[in-house]
Amino acid sequence: MDKITMEGVTAYPLKRIAVDNGDILHAVKATDDGYAGFGEVYFSQIREGAVKGWKRHNRLTLNLVVPAGEIRFVLYDDRPGSATCGQFEAITLSPDKNYRRLTVAPGIWLAFQGIAPGVSMLMDLIPEAHDPEEADKKTLAEINYSFSL
Amino acid sequence: MDKITMEGVTAYPLKRIAVDNGDILHAVKATDDGYAGFGEVYFSQIREGAVKGWKRHNRLTLNLVVPAGEIRFVLYDDRPGSATCGQFEAITLSPDKNYRRLTVAPGIWLAFQGIAPGVSMLMDLIPEAHDPEEADKKTLAEINYSFSL
Repeated sequence: MDKITMEGVTAYPLKRIAVDNGDILHAVKATDDGYAGFGEVYFSQIREGAVKGWKRHNRLTLNLVVPAGEIRFVLYDDRPGSATCGQFEAITLSPDKNYRRLTVAPGIWLAFQGIAPGVSMLMDLIPEAHDPEEADKKTLAEINYSFSL
Repeated sequence: MDKITMEGVTAYPLKRIAVDNGDILHAVKATDDGYAGFGEVYFSQIREGAVKGWKRHNRLTLNLVVPAGEIRFVLYDDRPGSATCGQFEAITLSPDKNYRRLTVAPGIWLAFQGIAPGVSMLMDLIPEAHDPEEADKKTLAEINYSFSL
Protein backbone atom coordinates (compact mmCIF):
# COMPACT_ATOMS: atom_id res chain seq x y z
CA MET A 1 0.00 0.00 0.00
CA ASP A 2 3.05 2.24 -0.07
CA LYS A 3 3.40 2.37 -3.83
CA ILE A 4 1.68 5.57 -4.84
CA THR A 5 1.52 5.96 -8.60
CA MET A 6 -0.73 9.02 -8.83
CA GLU A 7 0.98 12.05 -10.37
CA GLY A 8 1.64 14.68 -7.69
CA VAL A 9 1.26 12.34 -4.71
CA THR A 10 4.12 10.89 -2.65
CA ALA A 11 4.22 8.99 0.63
CA TYR A 12 7.61 9.73 2.16
CA PRO A 13 8.83 7.42 4.95
CA LEU A 14 9.17 9.20 8.30
CA LYS A 15 11.50 8.39 11.17
CA ARG A 16 10.16 7.26 14.51
CA ILE A 17 12.87 7.25 17.17
CA ALA A 18 12.34 4.87 20.08
CA VAL A 19 12.81 6.58 23.46
CA ASP A 20 12.07 4.99 26.85
CA ASN A 21 9.61 7.56 28.15
CA GLY A 22 7.93 8.15 24.79
CA ASP A 23 9.05 8.11 21.16
CA ILE A 24 10.05 11.04 18.95
CA LEU A 25 8.21 11.11 15.61
CA HIS A 26 9.45 13.24 12.75
CA ALA A 27 6.81 15.10 10.73
CA VAL A 28 7.96 17.85 8.33
CA LYS A 29 11.26 19.67 7.80
CA ALA A 30 11.73 22.80 5.69
CA THR A 31 14.35 20.92 3.68
CA ASP A 32 12.05 17.97 2.87
CA ASP A 33 10.99 17.10 -0.65
CA GLY A 34 7.37 18.12 -0.97
CA TYR A 35 7.61 20.97 1.53
CA ALA A 36 6.01 23.98 -0.16
CA GLY A 37 6.33 26.67 2.52
CA PHE A 38 4.67 27.31 5.85
CA GLY A 39 1.31 28.99 6.22
CA GLU A 40 -0.38 26.89 8.87
CA VAL A 41 -0.32 23.58 10.63
CA TYR A 42 -3.57 22.16 12.05
CA PHE A 43 -5.12 18.90 13.20
CA SER A 44 -8.23 17.08 12.08
CA GLN A 45 -9.80 14.30 14.10
CA ILE A 46 -11.76 11.48 12.48
CA ARG A 47 -13.95 8.95 14.27
CA GLU A 48 -13.73 5.22 13.52
CA GLY A 49 -15.59 4.46 10.31
CA ALA A 50 -16.43 8.11 9.61
CA VAL A 51 -15.35 9.71 6.34
CA LYS A 52 -14.50 13.36 5.65
CA GLY A 53 -14.51 14.45 2.01
CA TRP A 54 -14.45 14.93 -0.82
CA LYS A 55 -12.32 18.02 -0.90
CA ARG A 56 -10.00 19.41 -3.58
CA HIS A 57 -7.46 22.10 -2.86
CA ASN A 58 -6.81 24.15 -5.96
CA ARG A 59 -3.75 26.09 -4.84
CA LEU A 60 -2.33 24.35 -1.76
CA THR A 61 0.03 21.43 -1.48
CA LEU A 62 -0.89 19.30 1.55
CA ASN A 63 1.60 17.55 3.80
CA LEU A 64 -0.32 15.00 5.86
CA VAL A 65 0.96 13.01 8.84
CA VAL A 66 -0.99 10.69 11.16
CA PRO A 67 0.49 10.96 14.69
CA ALA A 68 -2.33 9.05 16.43
CA GLY A 69 -4.69 6.26 15.39
CA GLU A 70 -4.98 5.05 11.81
CA ILE A 71 -6.44 6.84 8.79
CA ARG A 72 -7.17 5.69 5.26
CA PHE A 73 -6.65 8.39 2.65
CA VAL A 74 -8.35 8.04 -0.72
CA LEU A 75 -7.24 10.20 -3.62
CA TYR A 76 -9.04 10.70 -6.90
CA ASP A 77 -7.49 12.28 -9.96
CA ASP A 78 -9.81 13.90 -12.51
CA ARG A 79 -7.28 16.39 -13.84
CA PRO A 80 -7.49 16.59 -17.63
CA GLY A 81 -4.07 15.84 -19.08
CA SER A 82 -2.81 14.00 -16.01
CA ALA A 83 -1.27 10.63 -16.81
CA THR A 84 -3.29 9.20 -13.91
CA CYS A 85 -6.60 10.93 -14.75
CA GLY A 86 -9.53 8.73 -13.69
CA GLN A 87 -7.50 6.79 -11.11
CA PHE A 88 -8.16 6.27 -7.43
CA GLU A 89 -5.38 5.63 -4.96
CA ALA A 90 -5.67 4.62 -1.30
CA ILE A 91 -3.09 4.55 1.47
CA THR A 92 -3.52 3.84 5.18
CA LEU A 93 -1.22 5.68 7.57
CA SER A 94 -0.55 5.28 11.27
CA PRO A 95 2.38 5.90 13.62
CA ASP A 96 2.62 2.18 14.41
CA LYS A 97 2.09 0.40 11.09
CA ASN A 98 2.94 2.83 8.30
CA TYR A 99 4.40 6.14 9.42
CA ARG A 100 4.73 8.37 6.37
CA ARG A 101 4.20 11.93 5.20
CA LEU A 102 1.67 12.10 2.39
CA THR A 103 2.30 15.02 0.03
CA VAL A 104 -0.66 15.88 -2.20
CA ALA A 105 -0.37 18.39 -5.04
CA PRO A 106 -3.20 20.86 -5.74
CA GLY A 107 -6.03 19.63 -7.97
CA ILE A 108 -6.45 16.14 -6.50
CA TRP A 109 -9.64 15.06 -4.70
CA LEU A 110 -9.10 13.76 -1.17
CA ALA A 111 -11.28 11.93 1.33
CA PHE A 112 -10.20 10.17 4.52
CA GLN A 113 -11.64 7.64 6.91
CA GLY A 114 -10.94 6.78 10.55
CA ILE A 115 -9.75 3.17 10.83
CA ALA A 116 -8.59 2.86 14.45
CA PRO A 117 -11.03 2.50 17.37
CA GLY A 118 -12.00 5.84 18.85
CA VAL A 119 -10.60 9.00 17.32
CA SER A 120 -7.67 9.14 14.91
CA MET A 121 -5.85 12.34 14.10
CA LEU A 122 -4.06 13.85 11.15
CA MET A 123 -1.74 16.81 11.04
CA ASP A 124 -1.78 18.89 7.88
CA LEU A 125 0.89 21.46 7.02
CA ILE A 126 -0.15 23.89 4.29
CA PRO A 127 1.78 26.72 2.61
CA GLU A 128 -0.91 29.36 3.25
CA ALA A 129 -3.38 29.86 6.05
CA HIS A 130 -6.71 28.07 5.51
CA ASP A 131 -8.87 29.75 2.86
CA PRO A 132 -12.26 28.17 2.10
CA GLU A 133 -12.35 29.94 -1.28
CA GLU A 134 -9.33 27.97 -2.42
CA ALA A 135 -10.97 24.53 -2.12
CA ASP A 136 -13.89 22.72 -3.76
CA LYS A 137 -16.10 20.16 -2.10
CA LYS A 138 -18.22 17.25 -3.27
CA THR A 139 -20.44 14.94 -1.32
CA LEU A 140 -19.29 11.34 -0.86
CA ALA A 141 -22.02 10.24 -3.30
CA GLU A 142 -20.65 12.44 -6.07
CA ILE A 143 -17.43 10.43 -6.47
CA ASN A 144 -18.00 6.69 -6.57
CA TYR A 145 -15.80 4.92 -4.02
CA SER A 146 -16.66 2.26 -1.45
CA PHE A 147 -15.52 3.27 2.04
CA SER A 148 -16.68 0.07 3.74
CA LEU A 149 -14.30 -1.02 6.51
CA MET B 1 -3.09 27.74 35.43
CA ASP B 2 -3.32 29.87 32.30
CA LYS B 3 -1.61 32.90 33.75
CA ILE B 4 1.99 32.59 32.68
CA THR B 5 4.17 35.29 34.17
CA MET B 6 7.59 34.08 33.09
CA GLU B 7 9.37 36.43 30.70
CA GLY B 8 9.47 34.94 27.20
CA VAL B 9 6.68 32.39 27.76
CA THR B 10 3.11 32.74 26.52
CA ALA B 11 0.18 30.30 26.41
CA TYR B 12 -1.98 31.44 23.49
CA PRO B 13 -5.56 30.10 23.37
CA LEU B 14 -6.19 27.88 20.33
CA LYS B 15 -9.45 27.26 18.51
CA ARG B 16 -11.04 23.84 18.46
CA ILE B 17 -13.88 23.68 15.94
CA ALA B 18 -16.57 21.08 16.65
CA VAL B 19 -17.32 18.91 13.59
CA ASP B 20 -19.61 15.85 13.58
CA ASN B 21 -17.10 13.32 12.25
CA GLY B 22 -14.14 14.72 14.17
CA ASP B 23 -13.05 18.17 15.31
CA ILE B 24 -10.61 20.57 13.68
CA LEU B 25 -7.90 21.84 16.03
CA HIS B 26 -5.81 24.86 15.15
CA ALA B 27 -2.10 24.66 15.96
CA VAL B 28 0.23 27.30 14.45
CA LYS B 29 -0.18 29.93 11.73
CA ALA B 30 2.65 31.91 10.14
CA THR B 31 0.87 35.10 11.22
CA ASP B 32 0.62 34.09 14.89
CA ASP B 33 2.34 35.98 17.66
CA GLY B 34 5.24 33.86 18.79
CA TYR B 35 5.80 32.22 15.40
CA ALA B 36 9.53 32.50 14.70
CA GLY B 37 9.84 30.79 11.31
CA PHE B 38 9.60 27.21 10.11
CA GLY B 39 12.46 24.75 10.31
CA GLU B 40 10.73 21.59 11.47
CA VAL B 41 7.65 20.23 13.13
CA TYR B 42 7.88 16.96 15.09
CA PHE B 43 6.04 14.99 17.75
CA SER B 44 7.14 13.70 21.13
CA GLN B 45 5.21 11.08 23.04
CA ILE B 46 5.23 10.89 26.83
CA ARG B 47 3.92 8.03 28.96
CA GLU B 48 1.70 8.63 31.97
CA GLY B 49 3.79 9.77 34.91
CA ALA B 50 7.04 9.84 32.93
CA VAL B 51 9.07 13.05 32.70
CA LYS B 52 11.34 14.22 29.88
CA GLY B 53 13.82 16.95 30.74
CA TRP B 54 15.49 19.12 31.65
CA LYS B 55 16.37 20.69 28.33
CA ARG B 56 17.24 24.25 27.41
CA HIS B 57 17.25 25.50 23.84
CA ASN B 58 19.74 28.29 23.42
CA ARG B 59 18.76 29.55 19.97
CA LEU B 60 15.31 28.14 19.17
CA THR B 61 11.87 29.44 20.09
CA LEU B 62 9.51 26.51 20.74
CA ASN B 63 5.84 26.43 19.81
CA LEU B 64 4.27 23.54 21.70
CA VAL B 65 0.76 22.12 21.21
CA VAL B 66 -0.78 19.02 22.81
CA PRO B 67 -3.14 17.38 20.29
CA ALA B 68 -3.66 14.15 22.27
CA GLY B 69 -3.66 13.29 25.97
CA GLU B 70 -2.58 15.73 28.65
CA ILE B 71 0.90 17.05 29.42
CA ARG B 72 2.26 19.17 32.25
CA PHE B 73 5.01 21.54 31.17
CA VAL B 74 7.37 22.91 33.79
CA LEU B 75 9.57 25.88 32.98
CA TYR B 76 12.51 27.13 34.97
CA ASP B 77 14.15 30.49 34.44
CA ASP B 78 17.78 30.91 35.52
CA ARG B 79 18.64 33.66 33.04
CA PRO B 80 20.71 36.36 34.72
CA GLY B 81 18.96 39.68 34.29
CA SER B 82 15.54 38.17 33.66
CA ALA B 83 12.80 39.69 35.81
CA THR B 84 11.62 36.16 36.51
CA CYS B 85 15.05 34.62 37.22
CA GLY B 86 14.76 31.84 39.79
CA GLN B 87 11.06 31.20 39.06
CA PHE B 88 9.31 28.00 38.10
CA GLU B 89 6.12 27.98 36.10
CA ALA B 90 3.85 25.03 35.33
CA ILE B 91 1.00 24.68 32.84
CA THR B 92 -1.02 21.61 31.89
CA LEU B 93 -2.27 21.41 28.32
CA SER B 94 -4.70 19.08 26.58
CA PRO B 95 -7.09 19.29 23.64
CA ASP B 96 -10.08 18.75 25.94
CA LYS B 97 -9.37 20.84 29.03
CA ASN B 98 -6.88 23.54 28.10
CA TYR B 99 -6.06 23.78 24.42
CA ARG B 100 -3.28 26.32 23.98
CA ARG B 101 -0.06 26.96 22.12
CA LEU B 102 2.86 27.38 24.50
CA THR B 103 5.58 29.64 23.10
CA VAL B 104 8.93 29.35 24.90
CA ALA B 105 11.81 31.73 24.19
CA PRO B 106 15.39 30.45 24.05
CA GLY B 107 17.25 30.19 27.33
CA ILE B 108 14.46 28.71 29.48
CA TRP B 109 14.69 25.22 30.99
CA LEU B 110 11.82 22.91 30.08
CA ALA B 111 10.64 19.55 31.36
CA PHE B 112 7.31 17.85 30.69
CA GLN B 113 5.30 15.02 32.19
CA GLY B 114 2.58 12.74 30.83
CA ILE B 115 -0.63 13.22 32.82
CA ALA B 116 -3.26 11.28 30.84
CA PRO B 117 -3.52 7.47 30.94
CA GLY B 118 -1.45 5.81 28.23
CA VAL B 119 0.59 7.99 25.90
CA SER B 120 0.18 11.75 25.49
CA MET B 121 1.67 13.65 22.59
CA LEU B 122 3.07 17.08 21.95
CA MET B 123 3.77 18.79 18.65
CA ASP B 124 6.69 21.18 18.58
CA LEU B 125 7.30 23.65 15.77
CA ILE B 126 10.83 25.08 15.71
CA PRO B 127 12.43 27.69 13.44
CA GLU B 128 15.39 25.50 12.47
CA ALA B 129 15.79 21.77 12.01
CA HIS B 130 16.75 19.92 15.19
CA ASP B 131 20.38 20.51 16.18
CA PRO B 132 21.61 18.77 19.35
CA GLU B 133 24.49 21.29 19.62
CA GLU B 134 22.01 24.08 20.17
CA ALA B 135 20.50 22.67 23.38
CA ASP B 136 21.76 21.92 26.89
CA LYS B 137 20.52 19.12 29.13
CA LYS B 138 20.36 18.52 32.84
CA THR B 139 19.13 15.50 34.76
CA LEU B 140 15.87 15.83 36.68
CA ALA B 141 17.85 15.81 39.92
CA GLU B 142 19.88 18.85 38.89
CA ILE B 143 16.90 21.22 39.04
CA ASN B 144 14.79 20.81 42.13
CA TYR B 145 11.12 20.33 41.22
CA SER B 146 8.61 17.77 42.44
CA PHE B 147 6.95 15.95 39.53
CA SER B 148 4.67 13.82 41.70
CA LEU B 149 1.24 13.30 40.09
